[in-house]
This record gives sequence, C-alpha cells and structure tokens, in this order.
Amino acid sequence: MDRAGIWHNADREFCFAQDRDEFVIRIYTKAQDMDKVLLCFQDKYIPLTERDTRQEREMKKVACDGVRDYYEARISIHMLCMRYYFALTDATGETLYYGNYYFYDERPVDVYSMFDCPQDSREEELFEIPKWAEGKVVYQIFVDRFAADDYIPEELWYKQTLTYRDRLQGNLRGITQKLSYLKELGAEVLYLTPVFKAGTSHKYDTIDYMEIDPDFGSSEDLRRLVEAAHEKGMYVILDGVFNHTSTKFFAFQDLLSRQEASAYRDWYYPESFPVMEKGRPNYKAFGYYGGMPKLNCRNTEVQEYILKVAVHWMTKCGIDGWRLDVGDEIGHDFWRTFRKRVREVNPQALIVGEIWHYAADFLQGDEWDSVMNYRFYQAVLGFAAKGSLKASAFAGELDMLRGRLHTKVHPMLWNLIGSHDTPRFLHEAGERKKALYLACAIQLLSPGMPMIYYGDEAGMTGGKDPDCRRGMLWQEEKRDAALFEWYRRLTALRKKYPAVALGERTWLRVEDESNFLIYRMELPEKESVTVLLNGGEKTVLISEYAGKKDLLTEERFDGKLASFGVKAFCEEMVNR
Amino acid sequence: MDRAGIWHNADREFCFAQDRDEFVIRIYTKAQDMDKVLLCFQDKYIPLTERDTRQEREMKKVACDGVRDYYEARISIHMLCMRYYFALTDATGETLYYGNYYFYDERPVDVYSMFDCPQDSREEELFEIPKWAEGKVVYQIFVDRFAADDYIPEELWYKQTLTYRDRLQGNLRGITQKLSYLKELGAEVLYLTPVFKAGTSHKYDTIDYMEIDPDFGSSEDLRRLVEAAHEKGMYVILDGVFNHTSTKFFAFQDLLSRQEASAYRDWYYPESFPVMEKGRPNYKAFGYYGGMPKLNCRNTEVQEYILKVAVHWMTKCGIDGWRLDVGDEIGHDFWRTFRKRVREVNPQALIVGEIWHYAADFLQGDEWDSVMNYRFYQAVLGFAAKGSLKASAFAGELDMLRGRLHTKVHPMLWNLIGSHDTPRFLHEAGERKKALYLACAIQLLSPGMPMIYYGDEAGMTGGKDPDCRRGMLWQEEKRDAALFEWYRRLTALRKKYPAVALGERTWLRVEDESNFLIYRMELPEKESVTVLLNGGEKTVLISEYAGKKDLLTEERFDGKLASFGVKAFCEEMVNR
Repeated sequence: MDRAGIWHNADREFCFAQDRDEFVIRIYTKAQDMDKVLLCFQDKYIPLTERDTRQEREMKKVACDGVRDYYEARISIHMLCMRYYFALTDATGETLYYGNYYFYDERPVDVYSMFDCPQDSREEELFEIPKWAEGKVVYQIFVDRFAADDYIPEELWYKQTLTYRDRLQGNLRGITQKLSYLKELGAEVLYLTPVFKAGTSHKYDTIDYMEIDPDFGSSEDLRRLVEAAHEKGMYVILDGVFNHTSTKFFAFQDLLSRQEASAYRDWYYPESFPVMEKGRPNYKAFGYYGGMPKLNCRNTEVQEYILKVAVHWMTKCGIDGWRLDVGDEIGHDFWRTFRKRVREVNPQALIVGEIWHYAADFLQGDEWDSVMNYRFYQAVLGFAAKGSLKASAFAGELDMLRGRLHTKVHPMLWNLIGSHDTPRFLHEAGERKKALYLACAIQLLSPGMPMIYYGDEAGMTGGKDPDCRRGMLWQEEKRDAALFEWYRRLTALRKKYPAVALGERTWLRVEDESNFLIYRMELPEKESVTVLLNGGEKTVLISEYAGKKDLLTEERFDGKLASFGVKAFCEEMVNR
Repeated sequence: MDRAGIWHNADREFCFAQDRDEFVIRIYTKAQDMDKVLLCFQDKYIPLTERDTRQEREMKKVACDGVRDYYEARISIHMLCMRYYFALTDATGETLYYGNYYFYDERPVDVYSMFDCPQDSREEELFEIPKWAEGKVVYQIFVDRFAADDYIPEELWYKQTLTYRDRLQGNLRGITQKLSYLKELGAEVLYLTPVFKAGTSHKYDTIDYMEIDPDFGSSEDLRRLVEAAHEKGMYVILDGVFNHTSTKFFAFQDLLSRQEASAYRDWYYPESFPVMEKGRPNYKAFGYYGGMPKLNCRNTEVQEYILKVAVHWMTKCGIDGWRLDVGDEIGHDFWRTFRKRVREVNPQALIVGEIWHYAADFLQGDEWDSVMNYRFYQAVLGFAAKGSLKASAFAGELDMLRGRLHTKVHPMLWNLIGSHDTPRFLHEAGERKKALYLACAIQLLSPGMPMIYYGDEAGMTGGKDPDCRRGMLWQEEKRDAALFEWYRRLTALRKKYPAVALGERTWLRVEDESNFLIYRMELPEKESVTVLLNGGEKTVLISEYAGKKDLLTEERFDGKLASFGVKAFCEEMVNR
C-alpha cells in the first residue's frame, strides 16, 4: 500500500456538508492501489457503553486522474461531532486504518485517534449555490463585436485584420435585438464583457464604474436588455473588473494630481513619488502595463466602493450576477466580503471568477460559485484540436476536477472551448470543422455550464486577441447553418435530459489506441444518457450500441462511429 | 518516482508570505523518493523576451515523518504575480516537472503551466504572531487547586481522592502570592483555567462572563494579579469558554422561561419545545450533557456578546490573550471575526485554541496563533512513558508537525505533556520519575512554547480527571526538590540559548534499537544547541560528544548517556 499516496484533510473539499445532516467525505489514494475503502464513523460524545453509534460505509471511487483515485462517501448524520477513520484494503489484501493523520495496523477505538467533523461548523460552511444556474448554457458576448442596432458598414464590421484601436460599434440595444437568435440557439445566461465607461473597445480599463460606456448605450439600455432577457427566461451576468482601473479613473487622477497628499493614495500601490502617468509605471499595474493601475482591494474604502458598484447595478438594472476579472489576483478576504454583500442583495446572484488555474481555494463555498473553467478548455483543446491528449489523459483531466472540486461546483463550472482571451477553437484546430463539432459536443454534453463564445456557433475563426474578437458573423450566406443546427440540437438535448447538465459522469470505455470514449451521465432513479466520442482518425465499431436511436440525429445507430463522430443515447432507468 | 506521493497546493501552508517580499514554498513527496527538488520561478507578466526573470532554488528537506518528506524553500521576490513549478529528480535519476497540478516530462515554458502565487494576496494573509510570546514558557494553573491566600486545612487541600464536587478554595490572590515561585521556576506566561462565575469548581459552565467567580475573588483581584505578573515580566492568558454556557446563564434561563417567545431562542440550538432543563437535553449541548448548552456562535448577537466579553477583560484587567475552550467545535468564520476584534484592541494579544487534533485549518494566520499541542503530548507519551513509539516514530511525529504547520506557528505551539484533561504524566509513566525527567526535558528543549501543568515540577501525580487536579503540593518535605531544580535548569538553559526556543531542529542521529536521539537546534549565524536523549533502558556510548560541557549539569560529558538521560551542548557558530 502506498501510504504517501493517501491524502485526506478533515476540512474543506475533503469533509463538508452537502446539506443539513448530510455530509461528503473524501480520500485520495494512489491510482489502482486500493481494493476497498471503508469510511467508519461514530458519535464523538456517546460512549459505546451507552449506545453504539458506529457505522461503516463503503466509499465509491468517483474519479481517477491516472495518478490518484478519488473516493467519496455521502452520509446522513445528526450529531454534535462526528469522529471517523478510513479502513483501506489494497489489492494485496493488506488492511490499514487511517485516522487523525496517523496510520494504524489495528482499528482505532479511541475517538482521538480519528478525524474530526464538528457538524455545526461544517454546516455553517454549507455551499449555497444559485440553483437556477445549475447546468445552464452560457453565451459570452464581447459587446463591441456582437451586434449593433445602428447601421454599421460591412467593411468595418467584417474587417478581417483588427487592431486594438478598432471600434466596431456593437452595443447593448444590438444585443437586445438578437435575443430571439440567442434563445433559438439555446443560450440561457448571457455574459457580457465590461460595459462601463472605459478607454478601449474591450472596456477592461474602467474610467467610471457608475456609467455605461456611451459607445454601448445607457443604463436604461442595460435595464431593458436585462428585462427583455428575463422575459425570455434568460439571465444576464456582467463583467466586474475590480483588480485594476484605467489611469483616467477619478481616484488615480486624484493621485496623479495630488500625489502623496491625495486622499486616494491608498487606493493604489504607488512604489515611489511622484507617480508618473507615462513611461514604465512606478505603481503596481496589471501586467506592469501603465494603463491599468492595480486597485488596493485590501483598503476598506476601496472595498466599500466596489461593493457599492456591485450592488448598484444589481438593484438598478436587475443583473443576475458577476463574472470577476483577474479574480485570482484579489485576496480571499475581499471575495468573502463580496459574496456576503452581493448575496444580501440577491440571495440567488451568481458569482464566477476568472482564473486560468485549478481554483479549489476560491471554491469552498464562501467566495465564488464557479470559475471560467480553463482546465476544461485545455483538456478539450488537447484531445480534440491538438491531438496532444489521448482519451485516457483527457478523461483523467476531467476526473481530476471531479475528484477534487467541491461537489456543489460541478453543475456550475463554466466549461469553455475558447474566449476573448484565447484564439478561437476553430483556429487552434487548424480550421478543421469536425474538430469543432466534436469539441462543442463534449462541451454541451458534459455536466456544468457550457460557455459558448459568441460566433463559434456560426463557424467563426480567428487567432489570438484581437483576431478572436471579430465582428459577429450575421451574413446568412457565410454562416455555417449546419453547425448552428448542431449547437441547437445539443442545447435542446441538454434541456430535454437533465442528466446531461446535472448528472454524474462515469467512463464506460476509454480507448487510447483508437482514441474513443464512452461515458454515461446519470441522475439516480431518473435517467441516464450515454455519449460516444471518437477523437481518432478512423471509424470505430461499437456494436453494443447498434440499433439504438441517436438523440442528436434521431436515427438508429449503425454501430459505426466515424472519426470525430458523436452519438448520444438515452437509457430507460430500470427500477432499483 | 511516486507521483501520487507528490502534493502541493498553491495556497495556505504550501505557499505563503513569511514577510513582505519573502515567501515560503513547500512540496511533499514520498519519503526517500527524491534525490533533488528544485523550485523554479519567474514573473508571470514579464515575457522572457523582455527580461529573463527565471530563477531556481534547491529546496531543503526540512522534515520526514516516515511516510512523506517535506521540502521547503524561502525566496525573496517583488512582483505582481509569481509563477513556479518544481523540478523533481528521484534516486534513479528520473526528472519530472510539476506545475499547475500537471506533470510534465519537459520543463514547462508557458506560465499557465505553472503554479500561481499572486504576491499581494499572499501578503495580505501574512501571519502576524505576537512576537513577545515566541518560545516562552507557559504554566497552566487550575485556579481552584493552585494556591489560596486564606488558610485551607491540609486535610482538604491535600485530599487524595477528589470528587467533582470538591472545592479546595484556591483563588486569584493565592496565585499572586506565588508569582515569585513561578518566576523562579522560569514560567513566563500564566494560563488560568476559567475564572468567571460558574457552577462547578472547574468553572467551564459559565453563569456570568462579566463577573469573576466569588470563589476566586474579584475583577480587582484579577487586575492586580495581571499587574503583578507584568511587573515581573510575566503574561496572563484567560480561558475563554465560548462554545457553551451553564443552564444558569441568563440567556438560557430566558429560553427556559419564555420558550419559543424568548429573545434568546437563537442563542442556542433547541431541537424541540418546551426546552427542558432536566433529563436528556432536547437542545444541542456540549457532550450531550445537560449542564452545558451549546451557544450558537453563528448568531451575530452571540458573536457580539462574546466579543464584548473578550474585549472587556482585555481592557479592564489587561490580560494578554485567550485560550479558547473546545475551539474546534466553533466555526472558522467566528474565529476570523474574533481575531480581528481582539487584535484591534491589542495587536499583541495571543490567541490559542484548544484542539486535540492536527489543527492546520485553524492556523493559517487569520484565526489562532497556536494550539494546545496534544500531538506533541501523544508523541512524548508514546516515547517516554508508554514505550509505544520508537525513536524514529517519535521524531517522525514531530517532523510531521514541522513539515505541515505554518512556519510562524512553530515557536508558538503549546507543547504539553499533560493538562487538567489528561492523567498526569507521572501517572501515565507508571510513577517512574526518570520518564518525567526525560519528558520535561524534551518539552523544554524543543522549539515552541512548553506548557507546564501546575505541580508536575513538584513531582505530583494523579490519574484521570478529577484525580489529575489535586491541590498543589506546597509541603517542602513532600516536594521533589531535585525535580524542581531540573525544571529550573531547563527553563534557564532555554532562556540563555534562544536557539532552543526559536531554532530549527535537525535530527543528527535517530536510533531505534537503543532508542536514543540526537538533535541540533540552530539559529543561523547565532548559535546551535545539541541535545542527546536516551529513551532506552540501557546506557549508550556517544563518544563523539565526550569532553563537551553539559549545559544542564555544567559537567564534562564522559560519553556515556544513561538510560532516560539527557545532555545538552552548545556549539560555537563558525563564521559562514
């Protein structure tokens, strides 16, 4: 048995309340090391002589990332304090007990030799997610580039070689006009890149958080967009750029003019005086770029200001939540405060952080509900575009997230295959449409919140920023109608079968040589949907599914899965 | 290489600021698996084409617990955001790179393939400990049993068979009269078990947090005790029992009389109405015992009340901090608030939690400064009293704490070998005095804050509570003068050589067969003290130290270390 591979903490993602009186306990082990893992638990305060509260539960291996196996148990208890340990039996038959970070050859009897789960503390940390958002389809809109309500000359809108200075003049009213299109596609949550007054077309350099950029419209336009979206059953999320401002933001301007005497001196991180607007910044700045001085979010005045902004747009325009730009460069303490305040105003507000990394530390229940899932992006890119990840490595990547992240987070993850900050997927895939077909199917047939980057569904391409931010392709003759139809079917399937959006995924077959995968997503006692994905260059025979009706084409499957092909079947749930 | 044994999180105890611009990074690996571990780091935002910010640092193996090796590096940086990965080379020469929770065969070049350390966020979480407390000697006083200023008949005070109802009538003025004794012993911090009005002699069932129990004296007595202690350069810590109250506490009394209509209904956790004072409690209660209803510390009114209590005694009587009873059954959110408020009143206040478990989750810098170190207790008990831990397992236990807990915590840990909640060490050791000599030497010759349980230094014994709480042995003829002298020498040595209290421990020899250990504690460029401990039944020959002057006896060491013997030598630091 590999003791060094055994990992458990009696806290956070390893031991948490799933609900009142319901707990999830996890332990990691070296991949393929264990034959059986038992969770053994009892009441700390009731002596066995008084009442025997001991219980055992076999833990389920819910994921394997190739290096580690992830075991999980869900239990119902009602006690002041639970004590527990693990009984681990490996493939050789050796059994070892693990409690309170000690290994034992014999089953521990003293409760101080066990791990500790004070029920009240763990329940206090209950991860409350906005239920409405679970599994919904997100659509990312880069506002300057999606739609305009005015006439924009085609030579501007469809310009192929963009510079950072180009303004295509998309706006909020343009988005409102396209809601029916978005509804038809199956989008349910609209995430808009920043809309506040700023100096650039991307608007990530905020000049005034309290004003909609005149390029995009007015606060009334935003209010109407949100209202119209809500009428269609859609939600709207804004981009909160709170890590940095523009140098033109009033506080930085004050710092520039008054220098050491400025009342806003501690809103930023000046490193010497006089603070200079031009040249290499002598203050902390996002990416060391002079245009975007970093805000000091540890300053309570700054915190209050940001919270005022967040609350203002929620109450004034009824937005449904925030996506938080550069969320990982702002501290946990601020995000805890942010969550509390935002949730006071709207207990159902969605909070999504931008982070390109594994983000468990922000996803414990007291900061964000979700993240831009760039690990998913990397995995799909490797499997379906670059060929750098084989089937098992791809499945391992998704399993790593499944095994480690809080259970409440899975139906919330913004699974993307591209964004305004990456080259478009089609570009990365060498313009091979079939790779995009496969990738968006993976995205839309996975638990979580798939995030469609505007225009991917029309067949748009583009290299890295600003090329990935071209004007939305609205010309019918140039749009890929079949691709749109593929997206539409996938989102429809997702809505028809909740197991897809919310289910638990199990890998049924993972074949590296031919590079195909079969997985099942299941909602216990409801339904299960099985998906076949062929990431290989050759057709594969999967005869056991022959004759079943493919949910995407409504045709009977002939047992042959073409290269980059996708099939989905629904299984009737047998009573159990 | 054992990949499953490799563990790192880019947060908390694995990646933290030690100071402004100074960071500690850690990684765990399977024990003895690695030949060399390098930390490779660079600036996230400066492209290599502009400036090459890459650096490498060999990581130091600071601990091994038998299962895992703990590697650590300290680095100085000043950047917005550091990106880093590890280059791990095992004993076979295989090298693997680990970044952003991926393994690579080739050195990663993309910063998104690396771990993430946003400097500002980590610095915000800087662990601020009260410097005065580092390494100090704590003395635990069970107030009813330590000293009285009145005459107490000897047949009461020295009663050998105590019941829970006995009151020996020790009091605060009694402690004040004994300060010179405590000073002579070398005690520097006095920790008093609860002193507020309560129903029992142990006072853990608080009736009134704002009043000193009349058995013990008055708030003026406490103020004078603190003042007198401060005059002698000593500090005073009170016991904060905030997890539960007595049923006689006003809020619970109100709940009993008004039931559902009580304004204090949410101060507790009633599980049904009417709440009954007698019989099996129908409300959450500490240990399910009816006398101690659990407070709802998630209720902001309760929080405010507790904070008011905490601040009151700090300002009124000048106490230096709090030891927090049943700290692990109150949630992290409350402790974060508690720390903020207490530190506003006294930025140097010491906060120590009671927890019998590994406590890393409370020791991240935003809750407690330290804990009652019961893992240390277990280790010393196993090694020096029970013989259940051999030298290497004992060293492994201490190393586990060294490897895992935040570096700031080590000089703060309350290392104990017994308390009012355990049988006395001498009892556990079968009354073998030599075991106590060894155990208290380990305790006092280890980094941290050794906590002496009143009377251990006099040779007191006693089984489990209430037997371990006998009246303090003041009869000269019965006190063990040699043992007291041993304690006195150990505390004096500790004070003379700061390396003992604050140094970094390195194991030089760990021998299981004869069961002896040699370790060195070192303050870089200052001094180092080497300690020899023989936990075996036979004399061992350790000729390499023969001729050196033992700091405890001031005699030259003859190279023979007797069974349960201890020697300490100081090394002159050579310039380096």
